[in-house]
Amino acid sequence: MRSHQAFAAGGTLADIETPVLVIEVDALERNLARMARFASRAGIGLRAHAKTHKCPTLGRRQVELGSVGLCCQTVHEAEAMVAGGITDVLVSNEIVSPGKLQRLARLAHHARVAVCADDARNIVAIGAAAAAEGVRIDVLIEIDVGANRCGVAPGPPAVELARLVARTAGLNFRGLQAYHGSAQHYREHQQRLDAIARAIELCRQTRDLLVAAGLGCAEISGAGTGTFELEAASGVYTELQAGTYAFMDGDYSRNRTANGTPYAEFEQCLFVLATVISRPKPGIAVIDAGLKAIGVDAGLPIVADLDGALYTRASDEHGVLDISACQREVRSADRVRLTPGNCDPTVNLHDIYVVSRDGVVRDIWPITARGPGR
Amino acid sequence: MRSHQAFAAGGTLADIETPVLVIEVDALERNLARMARFASRAGIGLRAHAKTHKCPTLGRRQVELGSVGLCCQTVHEAEAMVAGGITDVLVSNEIVSPGKLQRLARLAHHARVAVCADDARNIVAIGAAAAAEGVRIDVLIEIDVGANRCGVAPGPPAVELARLVARTAGLNFRGLQAYHGSAQHYREHQQRLDAIARAIELCRQTRDLLVAAGLGCAEISGAGTGTFELEAASGVYTELQAGTYAFMDGDYSRNRTANGTPYAEFEQCLFVLATVISRPKPGIAVIDAGLKAIGVDAGLPIVADLDGALYTRASDEHGVLDISACQREVRSADRVRLTPGNCDPTVNLHDIYVVSRDGVVRDIWPITARGPGR
Repeated sequence: MRSHQAFAAGGTLADIETPVLVIEVDALERNLARMARFASRAGIGLRAHAKTHKCPTLGRRQVELGSVGLCCQTVHEAEAMVAGGITDVLVSNEIVSPGKLQRLARLAHHARVAVCADDARNIVAIGAAAAAEGVRIDVLIEIDVGANRCGVAPGPPAVELARLVARTAGLNFRGLQAYHGSAQHYREHQQRLDAIARAIELCRQTRDLLVAAGLGCAEISGAGTGTFELEAASGVYTELQAGTYAFMDGDYSRNRTANGTPYAEFEQCLFVLATVISRPKPGIAVIDAGLKAIGVDAGLPIVADLDGALYTRASDEHGVLDISACQREVRSADRVRLTPGNCDPTVNLHDIYVVSRDGVVRDIWPITARGPGR
Repeated sequence: MRSHQAFAAGGTLADIETPVLVIEVDALERNLARMARFASRAGIGLRAHAKTHKCPTLGRRQVELGSVGLCCQTVHEAEAMVAGGITDVLVSNEIVSPGKLQRLARLAHHARVAVCADDARNIVAIGAAAAAEGVRIDVLIEIDVGANRCGVAPGPPAVELARLVARTAGLNFRGLQAYHGSAQHYREHQQRLDAIARAIELCRQTRDLLVAAGLGCAEISGAGTGTFELEAASGVYTELQAGTYAFMDGDYSRNRTANGTPYAEFEQCLFVLATVISRPKPGIAVIDAGLKAIGVDAGLPIVADLDGALYTRASDEHGVLDISACQREVRSADRVRLTPGNCDPTVNLHDIYVVSRDGVVRDIWPITARGPGR
């Protein structure tokens, strides 16, 4: 991977101030290659999701390995990816403000741009933005296949919106967005199988109606790290939108496979490196990584390399570890690595990745798409 | 307050892209003035905590109104405040890395600098950093008064560390750090009263030992927005470290006063402004503010200005509102304001405050100390 910034490369992790995000780059490379190989063998497109990493350097590597382009969740992310050299972006979300639609249309001068829609007024607004810039924007109609978030109902309501897209100047109807977000985290294989079987059936019915109406349906895009093998085997989905597979996180390790073992298809390679700042009493170590350094929405962090240690409490700038079961002595200034429960909100707290191999800093990658996406 | 950046001032909130942090500046001014007046009348120092706002513009205003200086939680915050014109900072936390201690010592060329310590090796390291830069750093010994986080035991162990500070070149023993963090969020007045009474007693005993040992104890610093009236009345604490009072948040409204009413001493004046991006079905509105725009560690956000609406689910970039009890029609592109459960981690997600009066943008204040504090 190309260096984006030469800062600190060649030093060791011990030289880096904490709290900081660290990528173990060999494991990252294995994860990226494994998913690329899977998609290639399954004959399905991989459109890796940039919302996880928010980093064009990493996104370019995904494209080098065969990703057909990237998904983004906000216009801000799409701008950062295109600025970083990505030439095909799908905003897998609804964009409604005129200012953001104008920015999206301007991106289409530099890249192939697509966006999702689930509302007629919104489609008209996207068309107006595209026409004003003299560009074409592809639109995927988002259907709700069970996630209960955005998306029009599958079937005739989706066909009606697709028809509106097809007759709106500046727009091109590309197909369906059909992401079942909640199914990614269903713990049992059978639950995920049932949920995605239903999603596949809704996609198939809607696609058949679209084709019968003469609208076509070039793409059906969806899937995540928890279910992608099911969508890939469907013969209906054409693109996988997985993102977390690059890093993995604590939450996916709580999913179980068909034979009941913990899900371990990809390797944990993203950590928050933290420092012990206080040993106030026996059995307790306080570290400098709390709510401002690591997301806790999917459970408290897992202590990755201090056997027996438990992260028991997060406050704004502190984490409290119970180390009473640790064999190893723990002293002030010691380093510990934490695995986040949920990568995406954790990455969003940081501005850089420290890219490491065997404890040596190989590179620094800026997280240029960080932020809430205004 | 002085403008820090002229961007967008004079427009309306409708022109600002979301999700974005909005300060209602008149309510902020009332909060700042109320706390300053309280401290002045109580004859106690106010050392407002910058960890809440991470913004020198706001910190300068607190100092203009009488704050004796600011607290910070990280060296990064202290650097941002000193760069923004603050001349007296206390890092109310343990700093252990040599690189951060060097940066802290360098700050002491430009400002009065203090830091907390609860460990002998750390005190020696702070002294070495101060000596290397030819500066003096004040040290407060942090004692654990019930928060169960950092801090040495009150009494003789604290006195022993104070003695080490006093005999270390480059250091000055200023007093005690005695913040009872968890007491801030005890729901009942009596619980807070009992916890702080115990903290006061531990401070008094330790102070008396320090004075008897000839070490003195110029400052005892602590307290937060949930308990500051108790510490102020103690005759033992000399400084209040409250921060959240500037903005307030959803969590403090769950505290009850002595007569059982919800705590409402200060006004909510910080909001996340969000936009409805989808109305997928009756009774549901999806907005663009999820885990990357608002903290959920202290409960889901409160919908501030849409009667009957409930924020029911946060995903990375989405919030799902149940609007089935709303009288008002809710349409795509409508704006809603959210009150965060916990201000501090929410502020840390954003790069600017939009400063508003009557819906008009008066100013933009950059959150220059944003980040995990590496």
